[in-house]
Amino acid sequence: MTIDRLLNPASVAIIGASDNPNKIGGRPIRFMRMFGFQGEIYPINPARTEVQGLKAYKSVSDLPQTPDAAIIAVAGAAVKEAVAACAELGVGAAVIMASGFGETGAAGKALEQEMRAIAHKAGMRLIGPNSLGVANFGNGAVLSFATMFLEAAPADGPVACISQSGAMSVVPYGLLRERGIGVRHVHSTGNDVDVTVSELAISVVQDPDIRLVLLYLESLSDPANLAEAARLAHARGVRLIAVKSGRSDDGRRAAASHTGAIATSDRLVDTFFEKIGIWRATGTADLVDCAELYLKAAPPRGRNLAIVSNSGATCVLSADAAEREGFQLARLGDATVANLREILPEFAATVNPIDITAALLSNSGLFGQVLPALGADDAVDALIVGIPVSGEGYDYPRFARDARDFVDRFAIPLVAAIPQPKVRAAFTELGIPCFPTDEQAVTALGRFTRHHEQIAAAASREAFVPKALPDRASRVLDESRSLAILEEYGIACMRRRLCSDLDQALAFLRSNGGPVVLKACSAEIPHKSDHGLVRTHLSTEEDVARAYDDITARVKAGGWEISGILIGEMVRGERELVIGGHIDPHFGPVVMVGDGGELVEAMPDNILLLPPFTREEVAAQLAKLRLAPMFEEIRGRIRIDRESVVEAVMAAGAIMQDRRIRSLDMNPLIADAEGLVAVDALVEECVAS
Amino acid sequence: MTIDRLLNPASVAIIGASDNPNKIGGRPIRFMRMFGFQGEIYPINPARTEVQGLKAYKSVSDLPQTPDAAIIAVAGAAVKEAVAACAELGVGAAVIMASGFGETGAAGKALEQEMRAIAHKAGMRLIGPNSLGVANFGNGAVLSFATMFLEAAPADGPVACISQSGAMSVVPYGLLRERGIGVRHVHSTGNDVDVTVSELAISVVQDPDIRLVLLYLESLSDPANLAEAARLAHARGVRLIAVKSGRSDDGRRAAASHTGAIATSDRLVDTFFEKIGIWRATGTADLVDCAELYLKAAPPRGRNLAIVSNSGATCVLSADAAEREGFQLARLGDATVANLREILPEFAATVNPIDITAALLSNSGLFGQVLPALGADDAVDALIVGIPVSGEGYDYPRFARDARDFVDRFAIPLVAAIPQPKVRAAFTELGIPCFPTDEQAVTALGRFTRHHEQIAAAASREAFVPKALPDRASRVLDESRSLAILEEYGIACMRRRLCSDLDQALAFLRSNGGPVVLKACSAEIPHKSDHGLVRTHLSTEEDVARAYDDITARVKAGGWEISGILIGEMVRGERELVIGGHIDPHFGPVVMVGDGGELVEAMPDNILLLPPFTREEVAAQLAKLRLAPMFEEIRGRIRIDRESVVEAVMAAGAIMQDRRIRSLDMNPLIADAEGLVAVDALVEECVAS
Repeated sequence: MTIDRLLNPASVAIIGASDNPNKIGGRPIRFMRMFGFQGEIYPINPARTEVQGLKAYKSVSDLPQTPDAAIIAVAGAAVKEAVAACAELGVGAAVIMASGFGETGAAGKALEQEMRAIAHKAGMRLIGPNSLGVANFGNGAVLSFATMFLEAAPADGPVACISQSGAMSVVPYGLLRERGIGVRHVHSTGNDVDVTVSELAISVVQDPDIRLVLLYLESLSDPANLAEAARLAHARGVRLIAVKSGRSDDGRRAAASHTGAIATSDRLVDTFFEKIGIWRATGTADLVDCAELYLKAAPPRGRNLAIVSNSGATCVLSADAAEREGFQLARLGDATVANLREILPEFAATVNPIDITAALLSNSGLFGQVLPALGADDAVDALIVGIPVSGEGYDYPRFARDARDFVDRFAIPLVAAIPQPKVRAAFTELGIPCFPTDEQAVTALGRFTRHHEQIAAAASREAFVPKALPDRASRVLDESRSLAILEEYGIACMRRRLCSDLDQALAFLRSNGGPVVLKACSAEIPHKSDHGLVRTHLSTEEDVARAYDDITARVKAGGWEISGILIGEMVRGERELVIGGHIDPHFGPVVMVGDGGELVEAMPDNILLLPPFTREEVAAQLAKLRLAPMFEEIRGRIRIDRESVVEAVMAAGAIMQDRRIRSLDMNPLIADAEGLVAVDALVEECVAS
Repeated sequence: MTIDRLLNPASVAIIGASDNPNKIGGRPIRFMRMFGFQGEIYPINPARTEVQGLKAYKSVSDLPQTPDAAIIAVAGAAVKEAVAACAELGVGAAVIMASGFGETGAAGKALEQEMRAIAHKAGMRLIGPNSLGVANFGNGAVLSFATMFLEAAPADGPVACISQSGAMSVVPYGLLRERGIGVRHVHSTGNDVDVTVSELAISVVQDPDIRLVLLYLESLSDPANLAEAARLAHARGVRLIAVKSGRSDDGRRAAASHTGAIATSDRLVDTFFEKIGIWRATGTADLVDCAELYLKAAPPRGRNLAIVSNSGATCVLSADAAEREGFQLARLGDATVANLREILPEFAATVNPIDITAALLSNSGLFGQVLPALGADDAVDALIVGIPVSGEGYDYPRFARDARDFVDRFAIPLVAAIPQPKVRAAFTELGIPCFPTDEQAVTALGRFTRHHEQIAAAASREAFVPKALPDRASRVLDESRSLAILEEYGIACMRRRLCSDLDQALAFLRSNGGPVVLKACSAEIPHKSDHGLVRTHLSTEEDVARAYDDITARVKAGGWEISGILIGEMVRGERELVIGGHIDPHFGPVVMVGDGGELVEAMPDNILLLPPFTREEVAAQLAKLRLAPMFEEIRGRIRIDRESVVEAVMAAGAIMQDRRIRSLDMNPLIADAEGLVAVDALVEECVAS
């Protein structure tokens, strides 16, 4: 509610108000009056009686009423005093614009925490410090000093930009305004000491006029709030797109030895965003490029694309781009083809892509006839209209009207590709999403469709609530005990025996037959094969005896503690897989599955999952693996049973939600058409501390 | 030389000249006069004495001189007559604008060939039919009816657009003109019956004012001409970028059983373009997006990037994009860092990326100080300048001048990222390549750098001349004979013996030891293992005898012809590789190398090479394999010897240039740190027909 007081204030105090409308303490006053704020504006300036024509007050305590929001435009020690004064008065939220706090070091961080404590005690929320401000062009509450609002004139609209960085709150704003798209909310949280981007998103997605929310994040301190924002957004048909920067730093953080470490936290951000249905944009252009589709196109209904153009080259290029984006070319019904034959000249192509040819020049009605014919065909899920050649001699305003008629009649997304600015403008003015080139149009449609699919999948599941878990003390279990835990959860493991002497090993060989594998069983040695402590393909008693003695000798030489020598059946299969799990401090349990064996780190092919997850979710993610073709039969012989993998991943999910377990590493699991068998495992168990 | 007569004509005849300046036969006259053509224009129209104020002639034979070029703007049967008349007169080249020829079917194709024969007999060249025309804005010879020249006003400049498609000749033109870039040549070859895009490229790259040539190709009928154009271009510092469309169709053409078929012809286009140093763009936007870099930036000199911005977020986003594009962040020298500490305020970042912070607002001279400090540092190969926040209050014209001074002083490419149009314009006007966002700037610089690297590699090798080779009759050799050919060329093969009875096989086992492999040796059976005709891991005489009998029985049951049973050593290694080769009808010999074994088609990881190639070239391409990490030691144990792979690929190149061989398939080759051993092979030998 206090965030609502901030974004929809009845009154705003400006502490450090300036008569100069271009100073930090002057701009917000100028902006609120310029952009139609109807509430009270209270300049606070002990040195003046009037600021920019408004009555000024010596301090907040002199105000005739408690303001909903305060702008703290002073600097240094005065900031904390202002926070305290506002808190005491019962102000809803204060925006701290000054920099020089947490970003300068430990002292600054401590000061931030003090201010936060003062505010929270009084139920007040803080934005910043180091915030460019918050701006709501729906009501003129522009508590911001952003120069960009003088550069690109504001217009209220269905978009919100919320960012930690000031620059990245106004750059998307500017790019959208240039394209004529209205933006209501432009908020920057700066050092994020209290109110986060995610919290503002929760508030903004509930604004009934908002359709699209663009976020810029440098950290993800409160994923649960972001998940909640996404849940609320989906329920209201609002779309969230986010840039989470710092991929490259995170990429470097990969640790080498532990399976969980393959899951760099940046990849986990990808997983998390997909799971909650937020599109992760790669950068600023990607953040804003598809805005018209989100705001103006019908929701995607499938991946069968029809392409119409007056140029054969555009047809070819669009078809190329369509394949790249995972679209199929819609197979038009017989009736549609017959219909197109009637409409189009003989030399035109009536199969998709549809080349209506230069005949468009002499018959301006072609689009008006072709488009409804395609709209009436259930095989068509989406439409690309390419008009690379037009202008003088062409009745392109009519083409645009025909496209508009189509959009009004059919719930099918239509995207136009038009290089000429004035022709494109004719379409844009009628609300048709439009890109200069065919590849841009198809790429945008592809990404819009994928996002829609992600949202539909997210909405079909129980909402995901990430749970931050404190790290706990743990100990590594040896292979024998690790495998026993997997079996508890229903994961098939190799037949085996933990031996304390050679006779036991030989007895296993005799009763189970060979070949067998022999390994030192120890919680101490992570990569046993690197130390010659794993012997495979042992078929005879001599082989086993020799290997047993050699491993025993090496263990002795290494000074390792072992719980015995593990003898097990040699499991053959088509592929070695890996399943791992760890606890992420922000997201909680994480499961990883992919290609296993010794190259698991050198040539990674794996995906991450955030439990709880459904079988469908696991299957959908498995399809993204490079080795996914192995789930279907290859050359009539080779296959991995997908269901067994799904089951094992479900089990891993259950294990990782068992709070006794801190990490899990099954590598390899031997997979074939019959199933999946774990032949090595390492489990870390939490210990009471 | 006739192409030169076409592009630089002293006189042009228009057959079917129209008084209406917007008809096909009228536009070229209008354009030539509008755009300053200084030569003679001869309208041909039997029905008129004057056309657009010019004296008209009844036929070309009435002309006072033989025109260098003729535009054939008539249609139907009159086209062939006009071609014949021009040929008889000695016209250099004729542009046929009418459609309705090859694209309509066999009759049209035949007519095209007739016209071509008539022209060639007289030494005349044809453009089209179905051509939008050719246009040279350097001399006003605009033999074109493109509406786009009325939409986007022409300006002579250093760019050429050459395309089979009319639309794709003018769309890049339009997009460049919108950005203020001058374009001299705009040519469309239409049905390509005679003069090809590649031939025009050969001519255009020799125009001393041209710096950048953009091509659109739907077919690649004369790769040798394109290679020649590239060779000439590199020698003159002209850059070639091409869209070759139809990727998706070609992608489908992959055939399943034969190794060579993994090389879809579209991938071969990628290989060919890279080999000759032409950048293959994915589509129209990609074709034109980097034009400013090609025209205005210093040539790339390396991959160490410095990033400067007044926004921390831009620094982070640029660093992310830099990693994605394969740049390292330049490690600035100590002197540079000390220098930056002097220049920048205390809270700024003096390590790369350099965040000069909002201090830019109060100190407009910061860029002018920081940029030369970076330019003087040898560690800096390229520079990204991001100014996301600027406008009112900022002296951005000075920032632009400072960037210009840097460009004038240092041979280092500088690319700016500026979202605000008016600020961007200030930079663009001074010739600084500029993009709206950091990711676009870094992506463009990355692609510019890669292209430069490709050109440098191409220029360091002997020029590649693709040789179209007619397909020849061939026969498949059995494994024994295939391996013998590999050994001739120095490829290590498994020790083996072709046995005609079991005793020979047992003798091999006794002398070589086990385990061994047994296979039916036959030229008839492509996938022997699919038929149970390969037995591995045979260690004892019993094993061998049983396998021998079983294979013999299966061969009998299958009714196959075999040349014996091949017994061979079991070769162990780290990875199965594949090397293949085939003859492409357009490009000649092709070699493929990559990950081998049974999943070679289901999970492809391979690269293509066009012989002849150098060791360096092979090594550079091998680095692109997903399995490339295996060339370095993994976990202290696993490694494939790169040199052995390079040697085997060189040998495969030599084999494929041996005209006796039609195709080659070594799968698997067993690779480890010691070398590479072929354990199965299939060679197709050409036979005299």
